[in-house]
Amino acid sequence: MKIIIVGATGTMGQHLVSALEKEHEIIRVASSGGDIQADITSTASIENMFKQVGEFDALISTAGPTFVGTWKKLDDKNFRNGVEGKMMGQINLVLIGQHYINSKGSFTLITGALTEEPQRNFANASAANGAVEGFVRGAAIELENGIRINAVSPTVIENSPQYFPYFPGEIPTTMKELEYAFRKSIFGAHTGQIIKTW
Amino acid sequence: MKIIIVGATGTMGQHLVSALEKEHEIIRVASSGGDIQADITSTASIENMFKQVGEFDALISTAGPTFVGTWKKLDDKNFRNGVEGKMMGQINLVLIGQHYINSKGSFTLITGALTEEPQRNFANASAANGAVEGFVRGAAIELENGIRINAVSPTVIENSPQYFPYFPGEIPTTMKELEYAFRKSIFGAHTGQIIKTW
Repeated sequence: MKIIIVGATGTMGQHLVSALEKEHEIIRVASSGGDIQADITSTASIENMFKQVGEFDALISTAGPTFVGTWKKLDDKNFRNGVEGKMMGQINLVLIGQHYINSKGSFTLITGALTEEPQRNFANASAANGAVEGFVRGAAIELENGIRINAVSPTVIENSPQYFPYFPGEIPTTMKELEYAFRKSIFGAHTGQIIKTW
Repeated sequence: MKIIIVGATGTMGQHLVSALEKEHEIIRVASSGGDIQADITSTASIENMFKQVGEFDALISTAGPTFVGTWKKLDDKNFRNGVEGKMMGQINLVLIGQHYINSKGSFTLITGALTEEPQRNFANASAANGAVEGFVRGAAIELENGIRINAVSPTVIENSPQYFPYFPGEIPTTMKELEYAFRKSIFGAHTGQIIKTW
């Protein structure tokens, strides 16, 4: 299977690359590094990435820039970090990628527990996650040729201990749990699902 | 209580105005008509509206422009209808309005069943709704001075029969159910809740 991993150089992406590359052809996409560079906040850059990749079977995204910071600084301008990054960046990967993906292919986007379990400093991520989850449900009944779409929703991940203080009481998602949630989406038959690790 | 109704001239807004104006001071805000005109896609227009209104106790919004149309036409450009309208329009009403609202005041935004119950042609609304619902949960734990925030989630409403064909099997939300959901948010003690009529 030919699998595009967007955000391939990040903490989650690196784990997924190493877990999947033994059995599959992996195209590593990142803002810098990787096999192909793409800026997901630009539709032209996304289009260019898909043109370089050509046909593929699955796209998984772990790319989720959002504004993290105190509520007092959360204005329209800072809110756009999550709107253009984790929300529209991932949505445009699907809206554009549907024209390049093989029949019966799948898209798997990343959201997170913050949609339903808010934490201080993360209201922008709660909104971006919620948008992606709503989109996944809406897109699942529209995509043709057997193409599926799901989201993986982890809580704070074990390999990012710098975030633990922001998630009091959250039992971290292990890298293995994260990987298996993506496996469920890529290799299973689900569509329109939010696959939670919490 | 001094209550701002944004979207006051729409189908939902008109009902809420007439239901609440007997006992409360209502400020009717709309893109045209009403007491004050505001374009919620413009932060300057929102700021100007709040300056004209001054202090208030509750804001309720029924304003939710989104792109409704076939999946094939849903590109980044059309997606912005819901992003700027139902999503950022309503979010900016809160981010800006929090500086004008009285202590113990409340914000009540509008989402809809499409967040969880998608229908064809409405993926943009599913995403915008999801974003607003995530934001409501995130904002509820950040707002100070006892200020509350909730969303009302109706399904297709009984006074909009032109939409019935797009919502097969959905039992329409009555205007009374819609009104009571808003009453629960404005006059109750809830915060961070999605008040569903379905």
